[in-house]
Amino acid sequence: MPTTLVGATVEGKPNFVTIAHVGIMDLGSVSLGMAKAHYTNVGIKESGTFSINLPSTDMVKETDYCGLVSGKRVDKAQLFHVFYGNLKTAPLVAECPISMECKLIKVVDFPKHDVFIGEIVTTYADDAVLTDGAVDYGKVRPLLFTMVDQSYWMLGKRFAKAWSIGKELKGNKSTEAVGK
Amino acid sequence: MPTTLVGATVEGKPNFVTIAHVGIMDLGSVSLGMAKAHYTNVGIKESGTFSINLPSTDMVKETDYCGLVSGKRVDKAQLFHVFYGNLKTAPLVAECPISMECKLIKVVDFPKHDVFIGEIVTTYADDAVLTDGAVDYGKVRPLLFTMVDQSYWMLGKRFAKAWSIGKELKGNKSTEAVGK
Repeated sequence: MPTTLVGATVEGKPNFVTIAHVGIMDLGSVSLGMAKAHYTNVGIKESGTFSINLPSTDMVKETDYCGLVSGKRVDKAQLFHVFYGNLKTAPLVAECPISMECKLIKVVDFPKHDVFIGEIVTTYADDAVLTDGAVDYGKVRPLLFTMVDQSYWMLGKRFAKAWSIGKELKGNKSTEAVGK
Repeated sequence: MPTTLVGATVEGKPNFVTIAHVGIMDLGSVSLGMAKAHYTNVGIKESGTFSINLPSTDMVKETDYCGLVSGKRVDKAQLFHVFYGNLKTAPLVAECPISMECKLIKVVDFPKHDVFIGEIVTTYADDAVLTDGAVDYGKVRPLLFTMVDQSYWMLGKRFAKAWSIGKELKGNKSTEAVGK
């Protein structure tokens, strides 16, 4: 999963927490699976807004640090240049190549987790990660995460086009016989 | 995002569709953001079960093909060796190194998408992708996906430990001054 820095205003101040248990709902909405103990959850519920920032691999120390210490005790906003967008209450990380500000639209309650579903209001992308005006993940270099071994990974190479490479199997009689 | 093959029994037969708009909710539950037009959605609602299978990069053609054609017309189960687990109605793909059978616990309704939230009942892993008894994503070689350029990517190298590498920033006065 992509590792993200989730931002919210908590008790009047910007705070960030590291979350990789994210999800895509539809083309404009995303989810965050956040343990209820997180300080940030309070701020998301209070303000009804949050940000999702995608750090690149060279931000691995700062990103991991935001998952090690609580905003109750440490001012993690000091690590970054923080800015605000249209929602005014969702702090964004200038150092992250991609940042999204989100409006909370639903909370799905799990025993030990709040799942926050947010609609993306604005996406900010660093010019340096664009190719022909579109985000290029080869330039973003997202920080990927696996839970089983608690590890960070790099993104590898782009090697095939979706809705395209599978066309080579079209017309194969064993797969297309049923509807005929 | 990781590309998955989602399996369900539809009209009494196993069917598979390619979905990368997935999510992790809590440690035992996952989500699928699936356009309402998909044939598979009917089967998930009817049976209350589905599977999530993680193809490796060498299954890119079969995986992409399952996103190109509809189960209404084509018997996609012919592409794979299909097996069933404890739930009996969630078809699993033997060729995928990791497969999970899931019980549907909630549907979140979006204008054009059903978001299916499922509890993972059983996970099946190919012995070949284990290291010391745990799943090793370096061996799984998951098929990653980006929507912006409709591309498949490889996983790169594992390069840092989570809840660990950030410790190097602990004790930094500028970040830890606030709570004191």
